[in-house]
Amino acid sequence: MCAMRMDAYDSRTCSIARTTEIIGERWTVIILRDLFNGIRRFDDLQRHMSIARDILTKRLTTLIDAGIVEKVAYQDEGARTRYEYHLTQAGRDLIPVMVALMDWGNKYTADDEGPPMIIEHRDCGEQVHAVLTCERGHRIKQGRMLKVVPQAAARLAS
Amino acid sequence: MCAMRMDAYDSRTCSIARTTEIIGERWTVIILRDLFNGIRRFDDLQRHMSIARDILTKRLTTLIDAGIVEKVAYQDEGARTRYEYHLTQAGRDLIPVMVALMDWGNKYTADDEGPPMIIEHRDCGEQVHAVLTCERGHRIKQGRMLKVVPQAAARLAS
Repeated sequence: MCAMRMDAYDSRTCSIARTTEIIGERWTVIILRDLFNGIRRFDDLQRHMSIARDILTKRLTTLIDAGIVEKVAYQDEGARTRYEYHLTQAGRDLIPVMVALMDWGNKYTADDEGPPMIIEHRDCGEQVHAVLTCERGHRIKQGRMLKVVPQAAARLAS
Repeated sequence: MCAMRMDAYDSRTCSIARTTEIIGERWTVIILRDLFNGIRRFDDLQRHMSIARDILTKRLTTLIDAGIVEKVAYQDEGARTRYEYHLTQAGRDLIPVMVALMDWGNKYTADDEGPPMIIEHRDCGEQVHAVLTCERGHRIKQGRMLKVVPQAAARLAS
């Protein structure tokens, strides 16, 4: 996805760069937010975001090409076939990114009225956050508990 | 931060928009990545990223204005005072965003050689991920376990 620019990045950490390439554009993340919230039809998306139609088309195409969104046909009675935009599994797997962005924004960019929106666990009603844990289940609370490992080194060690 | 564009967004969910405004730019996330990895001096950052000096200056200024990075003076013997760029607490709080971006990129954009980089828990050596949990400690594994709540509604309910 970012092969053209690999020489300018450090290839070891290109997963961050590659993901930002795809979803970093301002409108794209807003489109994803609306899709997460169940808005699926072009006209509804367009209205809800007040985005220009050609920009919405372009951004949806980027998301489809990246495998994050798929077009699904639907037909209202007596009308011609139209399309909804659904998140794929890859799209749904972006939820932690969105929640992490929201956590930070709620903490650092909220105005006096507090965070405009929060996310709750449907079952228990408690607020949901993106947190760091290791595969053994330890909660990571500070950056100094992290170690960045180029994958080649990880393979050699195992 | 995004007051100018609030009319075009849905203000209820502006924390995502606001955060993307600040860190969404491609180079910015790469700068953050290098700062997380302990690269702090202008010349080192510039060399490591092969970024144009004026763009690096501009992006660092954005991060300083947003309270994510601070300039700290240092002086090598016999040289004039220079500056390092350190992450503030707000900057370190972006680590879950970076790890969430990396998790997704490692899963969906890695080539045949596998993810270029992983992050380990320094103590136990297991890989670290950004996961969703609620404040009662329940792990959230699927989007349908989430409920999006406008904060005004949350205040009314409590």
